[in-house]
Amino acid sequence: MNRSPDELERLIELMARLPGLGPRSARRAVLSMVKKRQTLLEPLARALTEVAGSVRECVQCGNVGTAELCAICADLRRDAGLICVVEDVGDLWALERAAAFSGRYHVLGGVLSALDGVGPEELRLPRLAQRVADEGVREVILALNATVEGQTTAHYIADQLAGTGAKVTLLAQGVPVGGELDYLDDGTISAALRARKTLE
Amino acid sequence: MNRSPDELERLIELMARLPGLGPRSARRAVLSMVKKRQTLLEPLARALTEVAGSVRECVQCGNVGTAELCAICADLRRDAGLICVVEDVGDLWALERAAAFSGRYHVLGGVLSALDGVGPEELRLPRLAQRVADEGVREVILALNATVEGQTTAHYIADQLAGTGAKVTLLAQGVPVGGELDYLDDGTISAALRARKTLE
Repeated sequence: MNRSPDELERLIELMARLPGLGPRSARRAVLSMVKKRQTLLEPLARALTEVAGSVRECVQCGNVGTAELCAICADLRRDAGLICVVEDVGDLWALERAAAFSGRYHVLGGVLSALDGVGPEELRLPRLAQRVADEGVREVILALNATVEGQTTAHYIADQLAGTGAKVTLLAQGVPVGGELDYLDDGTISAALRARKTLE
Repeated sequence: MNRSPDELERLIELMARLPGLGPRSARRAVLSMVKKRQTLLEPLARALTEVAGSVRECVQCGNVGTAELCAICADLRRDAGLICVVEDVGDLWALERAAAFSGRYHVLGGVLSALDGVGPEELRLPRLAQRVADEGVREVILALNATVEGQTTAHYIADQLAGTGAKVTLLAQGVPVGGELDYLDDGTISAALRARKTLE
């Protein structure tokens, strides 16, 4: 027996599907929207409708944007000779937040996984080879997650790009900035040790 | 430097204002919407627009609904002689989930608080006195939170309703079902001890 109107129940049910929200917190979020009608509910409804109507995938890199080319691919100041391959748009955003990369991206939309039945044709892989050939790319940085699937995908891509003349690099592995050795896993410590550098 | 489109940034900013979501989790939620366009983003945009257009406050009790009277006030099977006073629509939903009350509600929209400048005129209090007089109410159950403000408000309402002939009751205080004494605060234990009952 729950007497909140059906429209609200439907909204709560949809909100509960978002990551980080469960049925209870979705209910609380919807209640807070209803209370802040002018400042939250209505702007949110407008913003969502606008995003649903305008957001699309960039035909070149797979980033989200509002035009055929995303803002990064359309930006002529970004180095077209440098492509950073990421699994996901979220990873692209994380790299952009770090503001340490001035090239362009290529979003795979996943990683190879025999277990989940994800083969090369499910990912944006053919387009990557084509971009490397067409755009005169000097370097492809594989910024994939340090998981087994991520690393498998990285090796697959490196194989595919062998012979194109583009250098293929990987993100460095090591101790995170501010990280404490005591809390790090053995794999990270071994990797950091193997990749040790001379103090200059 | 964040190159996600402005529409998305605006949506993330609005989502981050929901309780239980911060900037990071709002970003994650929006990303998941964009990925699940057909199953999540578009239905959510429609549901929100519908709620923004249809949801209103019940003129009688302050509950949310889609008509002048909410589903509970419009339901003739609910006992009109019994009114449960709650602070908030969320509390009403919690009571409805427990499915233990067959009367009607009255949502105050807050509690008296000298500190926050909330006086009787800021709450739906005059309407309560009027309902008790007009609808031949037998009993008013004060289901307010067990906080100082909640209890102050309860006493204020009891004073206001004195002489109307309606019985004014409070929710019982005691050990929660499944509660362990070791984890309960002293106030609850004292209250449960004072309100002890004979085992039948």
